[in-house]
Amino acid sequence: MRVLYQSLLCPESRAVRICLAEKKLDYHCHTIKTWDKNDDLLNKNPAGTLPVLQDGSYIINDIFPIFEYLEDMYKNVLLFSLSIEEKIESRRLIAWFLDKFKIEVTYTLLYEKTIKRFAKLGVPCSLTIRKGKEQLEKHLDYIGHLADKRKWLAGDTLSYADILVASHISCHDYLGDINWTRHPFVKEWYMKIKSRPSFRDILKENIPGIRPVYHYAHLDF
Amino acid sequence: MRVLYQSLLCPESRAVRICLAEKKLDYHCHTIKTWDKNDDLLNKNPAGTLPVLQDGSYIINDIFPIFEYLEDMYKNVLLFSLSIEEKIESRRLIAWFLDKFKIEVTYTLLYEKTIKRFAKLGVPCSLTIRKGKEQLEKHLDYIGHLADKRKWLAGDTLSYADILVASHISCHDYLGDINWTRHPFVKEWYMKIKSRPSFRDILKENIPGIRPVYHYAHLDF
Repeated sequence: MRVLYQSLLCPESRAVRICLAEKKLDYHCHTIKTWDKNDDLLNKNPAGTLPVLQDGSYIINDIFPIFEYLEDMYKNVLLFSLSIEEKIESRRLIAWFLDKFKIEVTYTLLYEKTIKRFAKLGVPCSLTIRKGKEQLEKHLDYIGHLADKRKWLAGDTLSYADILVASHISCHDYLGDINWTRHPFVKEWYMKIKSRPSFRDILKENIPGIRPVYHYAHLDF
Repeated sequence: MRVLYQSLLCPESRAVRICLAEKKLDYHCHTIKTWDKNDDLLNKNPAGTLPVLQDGSYIINDIFPIFEYLEDMYKNVLLFSLSIEEKIESRRLIAWFLDKFKIEVTYTLLYEKTIKRFAKLGVPCSLTIRKGKEQLEKHLDYIGHLADKRKWLAGDTLSYADILVASHISCHDYLGDINWTRHPFVKEWYMKIKSRPSFRDILKENIPGIRPVYHYAHLDF
């Protein structure tokens, strides 16, 4: 049986869950608190990060390796386009979200609003949250620019890039940090991906102690 | 003609140069100072990072996408093993070096010793340099642990992981930050990769104003 070691409200864990559902692969979720020392996790991934996918005897860490592994191994549903241009563009967007977005938005907003609270690391810093929200706005403008001119973010087909970006968006939406009226193109694209069966499981996720914004699980919001 | 937009003493630019040489692909190098505002670079890569590979009409940014692109397109020489285990391990090590090593070592040591000087951002901070060197030691211990039990870092075959790690090592060696007597297994592995024809070009690189350590280009050091 496949096992996904993940944490709650973790954009990258969510992305892997959506990919597994798109490819119709069964798995069991094992939720870990990364801020607790965890020898079992370190044995599977010396870097100590999540998500980690165990697929039979194979253990795969980090989001880029997991996406590439899933695409190499399970070709029943392709999540990279056969067009070289689109594949390059998907990977560019994945790198963008793994690097820029994660540092500028995820590590500030999600860290301050959730990890700090769960791991008892003090009160959230309002200045850091404000800066994170400003950066989130800039990234949403960029996603909107892409969503306006393309069917999916990297081109004509749904790809890992859409899944990763939507996973990030879903976490920030859960916390009520997205002003949808300011981003109509992002909203239209997000409604489309949010309506897919592969997304259902994400919309059911409830974080103990943090209620989602009222529209979080609505397909029409 | 292929063009690689790169910067000097940049581990990831070096890695792409070695991959192109391993695959016997001609290219032209265009060296850019990333700390200068550069509209041409931003047009090619909105993230503004290097290296950027232009291959005909395709433009590929970031190291993971570049490696995967080269492997998809040029199968004359494979730099991922056909063994699934080795391919997973290569990608794990690439992610390790793109994430942990880059943040803990490259962004401290190379930034303090070279970028800060070139970009006139002040004097190097000796405390940061000391911390970077301590982290470098830990990573060298880990590389030594892998090199001791395997022919190449991910297994039996030379892979992108060896090339990326050796590119990082080459930059720190240039600056004289590696005490080779403390790391015999790393040294043995590095001598092997340093002796490959694909590495020659890297050993010829001279950074204006910064002389390499005396043994830098020696194959037996």
